[in-house]
Amino acid sequence: MKKIDVTIGIDIGGTNTAFGILDRKGKFYGEGNISTNKHKDIKDYVIELCSTIKDTVLNINEEVNLIGIGIGAPNANFHSGCIEQAANLRWKGIIPLCELVKVHFPETKVLMTNDANAAALGEMVYGGAKNIKDFIMITLGTGVGSGFVSKGNLIYGHDGFAGEIGHIIVIPEGRECGCGRRGCLETYASATGVVRSAYEMMSIYNHPSELRAIPNNKLNSKIIYEAALKGDKIALLTFDYTAKILGIALANAVAITSPKAIFLMGGLAKSGDFLIKPTKKYMEEHILYLYKNKVKILPSQLTKNVAILGAASLIWNDIQNNY
Amino acid sequence: MKKIDVTIGIDIGGTNTAFGILDRKGKFYGEGNISTNKHKDIKDYVIELCSTIKDTVLNINEEVNLIGIGIGAPNANFHSGCIEQAANLRWKGIIPLCELVKVHFPETKVLMTNDANAAALGEMVYGGAKNIKDFIMITLGTGVGSGFVSKGNLIYGHDGFAGEIGHIIVIPEGRECGCGRRGCLETYASATGVVRSAYEMMSIYNHPSELRAIPNNKLNSKIIYEAALKGDKIALLTFDYTAKILGIALANAVAITSPKAIFLMGGLAKSGDFLIKPTKKYMEEHILYLYKNKVKILPSQLTKNVAILGAASLIWNDIQNNY
Repeated sequence: MKKIDVTIGIDIGGTNTAFGILDRKGKFYGEGNISTNKHKDIKDYVIELCSTIKDTVLNINEEVNLIGIGIGAPNANFHSGCIEQAANLRWKGIIPLCELVKVHFPETKVLMTNDANAAALGEMVYGGAKNIKDFIMITLGTGVGSGFVSKGNLIYGHDGFAGEIGHIIVIPEGRECGCGRRGCLETYASATGVVRSAYEMMSIYNHPSELRAIPNNKLNSKIIYEAALKGDKIALLTFDYTAKILGIALANAVAITSPKAIFLMGGLAKSGDFLIKPTKKYMEEHILYLYKNKVKILPSQLTKNVAILGAASLIWNDIQNNY
Repeated sequence: MKKIDVTIGIDIGGTNTAFGILDRKGKFYGEGNISTNKHKDIKDYVIELCSTIKDTVLNINEEVNLIGIGIGAPNANFHSGCIEQAANLRWKGIIPLCELVKVHFPETKVLMTNDANAAALGEMVYGGAKNIKDFIMITLGTGVGSGFVSKGNLIYGHDGFAGEIGHIIVIPEGRECGCGRRGCLETYASATGVVRSAYEMMSIYNHPSELRAIPNNKLNSKIIYEAALKGDKIALLTFDYTAKILGIALANAVAITSPKAIFLMGGLAKSGDFLIKPTKKYMEEHILYLYKNKVKILPSQLTKNVAILGAASLIWNDIQNNY
């Protein structure tokens, strides 16, 4: 009987590491997770991760053929296979993770990239970009990440760190950003940026709003979304402002890679018509005539196990490009 | 005797069309030119162009093997082989130029792209980017053009029109641009943008300046450059302002494609230390920490026949990618 080709997708988050064993169609044959920050020594973490994976593989009833391991991790460098200076992980400096994993899987291809790039690949392999060769993936979470795909290939850049649309300066001398600069897209179009915008709207306008009763350190994007659903004017102005900044940034990004579609993913992307519709409107208003009415803005078609699907897609995409 | 492989590079400008017949090393075996706007009917233009080329080929003493024709033209679409809505040519609408040329050269590969993309390919094949796989070419002329190269491939986008950095909005609600919008990079960092900046500097500062004696419709970037050489404060402030706007725009572009180098070409790029040095300084000041001190800003290494070399490079690059 023919063995089933499977890949392993590993999603390394700040607290939890999840993995899945899946085939090209996205069917899972096993999954599991371990704590990311239990081990002080990265080698102990890798030992626990790899032995948990091996146990899970042994428990699969079907005959499977492991063709690769894909990893999505913060600050991951595709070219070097290293995690570099990740602020949210306990291991500092440069961590040669692919090399460490290969010690336990010497015969297996191991590839790694950051979560936004993995999301772009996941959309291409399993989601709404199956037939799209030129697109941009934007992840709107606590921060803003992105993956740019050209002719079916992720743009990694010379150093493996391309695709940081969240750190394009959209308002010169604007809001302070965690990166040490000011006015980055991330300070406006992320879940935390939306909270900052709600306060800006409260400072400019006099509309009564239930948001005025919530202190700065308690407000979040979900509360603003729920207020918008009820017609709260400050909440509506907040989304409109967010969409305007995001729409202009996307119009600029389009002038560089001319994508057929832009996918939005992450918590804030779930704000639906409060965000996607006006973002499209503002993008069209500010886009160069060459690109008018050509670029779709779409919600990601991936809803479950997004990060694992994305990490596994690193391998499927690599196979497709090399054979 | 083995025939010498040659390509033909054709540069279509608003008034003049120049071509050259050259080998992979850039040695010319023939060249010529015709008027671009003499013929009302595009077919008559193509007939004159192709017969002039054929005559030139017949006059070559060496035995040559023509492997392709590359064309650089305004508003050229690589995917379709058409010139689309070019403002500076007398033929309106969509002109299927590659198809029309192929009527006269049915056995020969014919490719076309815009001049900035051709310049990027020329830099890769004949210039300073021979060993660089990820770079950006910026042409600073009357307008601002660009070509983005990722892993040795030009980024064309889904519609063939990627790479319009000149139309990224750098100052929201800023200067009026020929494209109908406001605040595009082109309105600041081009030869015409520099003239506008000189007037802005004269409006802000009280420094005496020889530029104050020159009316708006007589001032040009060369006069400003010459004034800067003599230490004219308004001219120096003008270049500093130009470099600041360009440096910030480049810092943003780096966050998308993470190039190893950015090449500057065109009239304004010849302003040397008045432009390249401060542009590098401002880019580093405004760049995300991930990219700091990684990206070179370099003048183009092509000085002669740049547009013909670029057009011919379309074919050399295509061969390299396909065989």
